[in-house]
Amino acid sequence: MEIFEVNILGCGSAKPTTRHQPTSQIVNIRGKYFLTDCGEAAQIQMQRMGLNMARIGHVLISHNHGDHVFGLPGLISTMALLGRTAELHIHGPQQLDRFLQAILDTYCEGITFKVLFHPIDTRGHYIIYEDRSVTIWSIPLQHRLPCSGFLFREKEGLPHIRREMIDAFNIPICQINNIKAGASWQTEDGTIIPHERLTYPAEKGRSYAYCSDTAYTPALADIVRGVDLLFHEATFPMAFEQRARQTFHSTSAQAATIARDANVGKLCIGHYSAMIDDETSLLEEARSIFPNTMAAKEGMCIKI
Amino acid sequence: MEIFEVNILGCGSAKPTTRHQPTSQIVNIRGKYFLTDCGEAAQIQMQRMGLNMARIGHVLISHNHGDHVFGLPGLISTMALLGRTAELHIHGPQQLDRFLQAILDTYCEGITFKVLFHPIDTRGHYIIYEDRSVTIWSIPLQHRLPCSGFLFREKEGLPHIRREMIDAFNIPICQINNIKAGASWQTEDGTIIPHERLTYPAEKGRSYAYCSDTAYTPALADIVRGVDLLFHEATFPMAFEQRARQTFHSTSAQAATIARDANVGKLCIGHYSAMIDDETSLLEEARSIFPNTMAAKEGMCIKI
Repeated sequence: MEIFEVNILGCGSAKPTTRHQPTSQIVNIRGKYFLTDCGEAAQIQMQRMGLNMARIGHVLISHNHGDHVFGLPGLISTMALLGRTAELHIHGPQQLDRFLQAILDTYCEGITFKVLFHPIDTRGHYIIYEDRSVTIWSIPLQHRLPCSGFLFREKEGLPHIRREMIDAFNIPICQINNIKAGASWQTEDGTIIPHERLTYPAEKGRSYAYCSDTAYTPALADIVRGVDLLFHEATFPMAFEQRARQTFHSTSAQAATIARDANVGKLCIGHYSAMIDDETSLLEEARSIFPNTMAAKEGMCIKI
Repeated sequence: MEIFEVNILGCGSAKPTTRHQPTSQIVNIRGKYFLTDCGEAAQIQMQRMGLNMARIGHVLISHNHGDHVFGLPGLISTMALLGRTAELHIHGPQQLDRFLQAILDTYCEGITFKVLFHPIDTRGHYIIYEDRSVTIWSIPLQHRLPCSGFLFREKEGLPHIRREMIDAFNIPICQINNIKAGASWQTEDGTIIPHERLTYPAEKGRSYAYCSDTAYTPALADIVRGVDLLFHEATFPMAFEQRARQTFHSTSAQAATIARDANVGKLCIGHYSAMIDDETSLLEEARSIFPNTMAAKEGMCIKI
C-alpha cells in the first residue's frame, strides 16, 4: 500500500503546557507532506520526528488563531536558510494574509522561493487542492472566526494485473498499461478475454478528515461520512459542555457523536485544553459513544 | 545574596537542530525576569524550566532576525490568555516595530495589558532601563543589521550593620536606617562612633554582559571590562574564521580573546552554528585563550 499517514506534531490547544504542543499535523500522502496547521515550534517537532520539511509543498491553515499559525515565521525562515527553491503554497482564511505579508516583508529578504497564498472561503465545502493521487476539500467549521477543516480523499488507483492470466495468454508487456487502463485482450483465435478477468480492482481510495477547531456541528457528519479516519477536536470533557459551547469548541462526547453518526472507520481526538491533566477520561467518554477512538499524542504516526 | 542568575532557554543559532533552541535567556535579578531575546518556543522552554512568564516585565531584543524574535507572538498571546494586566515593555531596534504591530493588531484583540515598545539606538552604549537594583545598558554590536547587546549592572546595596556594635552602644532600632544610609552615632558621653565602625561595606554590585550576535569587535572589551560574567556568541570554531567574518559572527577563540582582554570573571559561549555536532572543541579553543570558560546548554542556570 502506498503511504497515507497522519503524523501528530502537536495536539494541545492555545495555552501551552509541558505535555502538549499546539495542534499541527503532517499528512503524508505517498511522500508528499501536507502541513495541517502550524503552531509554534512545529518545525522543531518535525525535526524531532525526522520529518523533512523540504517535502512540504502545501500548508493548510484552518483558522487564524495564534496556536495554529505561530510556527509559520520559523518554518518559512528555515526553508529559506536551507536554500529551498520549490514554491510553497499556503491555504488559509483571508485573515491570515496580513501576518504572512509581515513575515515575508520583514524576514524574508532575498528568499530563494515563492510563497503563494490561496485564500479559503471557509463557508463552503469545495476542492482546494488536487493532484493525481489526492483531492483535498475544505470543510466548513463553526468557530469564533472563519475556520475550515480539511478532507483528504485518495483517488482510486488503476486495477492490478493478474500475473497468472498474463502468463496464461502470453500477453506482451507492452499491453499491460492498456489493460490497466480498461482494455480487454483478444487471443490469436479471436476469443475476447474481458478486462475484469485480467485484473483485480484497485484498493478503494482512503480518506482522512481533519476538524479542528469547531463547535459541535451535527451537519459535519454528512461531509465526513464514512471516512477511514476522522480527527475531531475534543477540547473539553463532557462536564464542560457549556464552556465548549461558549468558546466554540467541542467535548469529547460530541466528537464521538459525529464519528458515530458519520459511521467513520476510526476517530482520533485531540486539541486538548490545558486544564486536562490526563486524556484518559476524554478517551473513555468518547469510547462509550464510539468505541474505535484513539487519543492523539505528540510523535504519533497513524497509518490509514 | 540576592538572586542574580542567567537561565539559558536556548543557545543555538538560526537553523534549528534537535540539540538546540534559538538563543534566548531569562536574566533573573532579585525575582524580576528580563527576557533577553525571544526565539521560537522560548515560552515552551520557560515552562519546561519552571520559569513563570508573569515575572517578565521587560523583553530585550538584540536584533530583528527571526531566531531572536519568533517567540514573541506566542509569548504575548499566552500572557493575554493568562489574563495578564501588568504592562509589558519590549526594547529592541526600530525594525522590530512592524512585526510587533502585526502581532498586536491581528492576534491581540481585547488584550488585557499594554505592550509598550521602546526602540534602542543600537549605535550607542547608554542606559535603557533602571530601577533600584539594576541598570541595563545597551552595547553596540556589529552584525548584518542593527544589533545591541545588554549590560546588566547590579547597584551596590546599603552597607550592613555590625550587630555587635549596635548592642555595645545600645543604638535604638529606629536609628538603623540612618546608619545604613551613612550616619555616625553619638553616645551619651558625646563620643562619636564613625559610620565605618558600625557597618561593613555592601557587596560589590555584580554584572553580566550579553553579546549576541556580533562580528569580532575588539572595542567591546572596553565596554564589558571586568564584568562577572560575559556571554559572547561563538557561532563557529576557529577554522571557520572567514565564514564568521562574512556572516558577522565570531569564533570561539575570538569570544575568548574579548573575555581575556576585558579581564572578565567568567566567559559563557553559545549561539552555536547548526553545523557543530559537539561543543567540546569550541570550549577547548576558548579555554586555551581564556581558561574560565563554560559552554551554554539549554536548561542551565548560571548564578552570578
